[in-house]
Amino acid sequence: MAVNLAPPDPDSLQPVAGVELGVAMAGVRKANRRDLLLMRLAQGSSVAGVFTQNRFCAAPVIIARRHLAGGQEVRALVVNTGNANAGTGEDGLVRAATVCEAVARALGCAARQVLPFSTGVIMEPLPADRIVAGLPAAVADLRADNWAAAAEAIMTTDTVPKAASRRVRVGAGEVTVTGIAKGAGMIRPDMATMLGFVATDAKVTQGALETLVRQAADKSFNCVTVDGDTSTNDAFVVVASGASGVVVQGTAELEALGGAIAEVAAQLAQAIVRDGEGATKFITVRIEGGRSTEECRRVAYAIAHSPLVKTAFFASDPNLGRILAAIGNAGIADLDTARLQLYLDDVLVAANGGRHPDYREEMGAAVLAKPEFTVRAALGRGTAAATVWTCDLSFDYVKINAEYRT
Amino acid sequence: MAVNLAPPDPDSLQPVAGVELGVAMAGVRKANRRDLLLMRLAQGSSVAGVFTQNRFCAAPVIIARRHLAGGQEVRALVVNTGNANAGTGEDGLVRAATVCEAVARALGCAARQVLPFSTGVIMEPLPADRIVAGLPAAVADLRADNWAAAAEAIMTTDTVPKAASRRVRVGAGEVTVTGIAKGAGMIRPDMATMLGFVATDAKVTQGALETLVRQAADKSFNCVTVDGDTSTNDAFVVVASGASGVVVQGTAELEALGGAIAEVAAQLAQAIVRDGEGATKFITVRIEGGRSTEECRRVAYAIAHSPLVKTAFFASDPNLGRILAAIGNAGIADLDTARLQLYLDDVLVAANGGRHPDYREEMGAAVLAKPEFTVRAALGRGTAAATVWTCDLSFDYVKINAEYRT
Repeated sequence: MAVNLAPPDPDSLQPVAGVELGVAMAGVRKANRRDLLLMRLAQGSSVAGVFTQNRFCAAPVIIARRHLAGGQEVRALVVNTGNANAGTGEDGLVRAATVCEAVARALGCAARQVLPFSTGVIMEPLPADRIVAGLPAAVADLRADNWAAAAEAIMTTDTVPKAASRRVRVGAGEVTVTGIAKGAGMIRPDMATMLGFVATDAKVTQGALETLVRQAADKSFNCVTVDGDTSTNDAFVVVASGASGVVVQGTAELEALGGAIAEVAAQLAQAIVRDGEGATKFITVRIEGGRSTEECRRVAYAIAHSPLVKTAFFASDPNLGRILAAIGNAGIADLDTARLQLYLDDVLVAANGGRHPDYREEMGAAVLAKPEFTVRAALGRGTAAATVWTCDLSFDYVKINAEYRT
Repeated sequence: MAVNLAPPDPDSLQPVAGVELGVAMAGVRKANRRDLLLMRLAQGSSVAGVFTQNRFCAAPVIIARRHLAGGQEVRALVVNTGNANAGTGEDGLVRAATVCEAVARALGCAARQVLPFSTGVIMEPLPADRIVAGLPAAVADLRADNWAAAAEAIMTTDTVPKAASRRVRVGAGEVTVTGIAKGAGMIRPDMATMLGFVATDAKVTQGALETLVRQAADKSFNCVTVDGDTSTNDAFVVVASGASGVVVQGTAELEALGGAIAEVAAQLAQAIVRDGEGATKFITVRIEGGRSTEECRRVAYAIAHSPLVKTAFFASDPNLGRILAAIGNAGIADLDTARLQLYLDDVLVAANGGRHPDYREEMGAAVLAKPEFTVRAALGRGTAAATVWTCDLSFDYVKINAEYRT
């Protein structure tokens, strides 16, 4: 039950010149399910990515990082669902490399020009042979107007495919930005999310693209949490094919393109929360008046990760003392609770260290009954702010994760 | 549904000379429910406590800390359930002081010789008048063999009262240590738990008792977590009435008494996890081979707080890659995953960065089917170790917390 999230209208997803997508059913974990995505990139594309900080990062993450660092032009991305190829040691690296080699053979490039991505169950051997066997069908399916199918092919516990698209004027030209993402659980990205891919036909240098991808991640995937569990496979990759011929350089132009990439990324990141495992509410947590962005983020995550706060949201129960308790646990040793102000949308709930005299329970209950609302806390310590998007904790989160494999 | 936890046999709870307990129904939140506990201490008692680190700590915590720091001999503890008097600002302090004054009048001591404690809903005004009105009944009920009733009077979402008792030989004499605790949710004590009281009739100096209470907390309440939410009202207090006439001093004697206090505290702390909201499993998380206790604790809590790990435990699903993912998220930047070994009880699950070749899914499933088991990870970095006790995350956790107030 996703919160205010419909499948993308395929017609709204603009093809990106220089980028073709093909999907196939490889039977990685289940039969008759699209579980393989191949992206072929035109010569001259720039590619930049950010990856999970989890120390048990997956084999494909290690190899994708290595291939990106190698400086060879990237010509393909290959993504499988059903198996994360994480917690698989040396053998996992061999299997991921096998997939890259097969893609390279199929497309006529080198294996180090292929970036591999996997998502699914952790600590089980990747059935590389099935992926290799599925590649010809994916190659045959390659085309530019295939983003909707691609969004579907990377889903796991997602209930809705996630894709977004923008056209943006940059200097004299116009370019396209289109992206897809997946993820519903094990979502607390720390650099990126469990698979987000955004492509543009703008021409951007590698260095500039690396800056744009980091900035976009910080305004999007790095601001969402479902359950506080950082995945082993998080990856957010931006491709700039250059096929539009529009060269993007200079501060103003890069800002325009970066803005469009960040918008697409934010829409995808919010879609992940809206489709969070068991989610029935979409909640924006906004912390203001902090001494630093970092401490505002710490407070926002303390609220967004508290099981007690999340279950109260699920129940539409304005048991708002739980939010104060979460703020008190955020690790700000010199927080002056008397200066804190807590709002639900525009309702002032707490001030002077306690409930505001004008606050009535009905006012809080009315806000919490909505499928989307904002929790806003002003710390009264400075001018920094941060926003985090999250969802509630429902019976279905437990159900989904107690039954995911078995 | 508590895990291997029965109500204490009242006959097993040794009275502590110099300590009397009285309970009453004050109707703080609900009628016809024991919700008020008064403890009267003999003259000459030493009292030491540790309290929550939550910045939104409750009004009674602030006052109890203040009264303890004042250096006046403590003569009474007063505890109410149904209302935490937390997130209540200046008005909360006034109401807690009102209760202390009423206790002082009833027992003939000064208000600053009374320590107040509250537990229940946060951010609602404490009905001090009802507590004051209930005091005469609690005074009339005061007696030394009333620990079982006291354990019951401090319950909130607890399903089983928690009490433990020991007799211990100290030097030439023998002393009693008896304690009670409550708590089932908002449990991740950081200094102490949501109300633990232990009393002994040993004679100990104030300074020595302060050391013993900190040591006992670190081996008990500070090692448990249900949901990672640190309460606003945590307090762990040890009373030494001295009424046995057995003077405890010197390293060996203090160690003997401290050991008994820590044992009682650990039994109570584990009882809190066994009765954790919705708990169906009791899990010991043991981390070894770390560079420091602090990093071992960080890894243990990363596992014990992961909703994905906890739901897999609930499902008895050996989806053990989730444990690796949690370890990878513990913030140890230079963790060498190839050196890590993961065990479920005695079953070696993972080594060399991935699943152990001898491991079979049935082996993990057999361990997880048990109501109690141990997750043990050897980090291969050093000689430090730490243990944390936790429970699983079930439908009932969500149910209890979605319905707690409404």
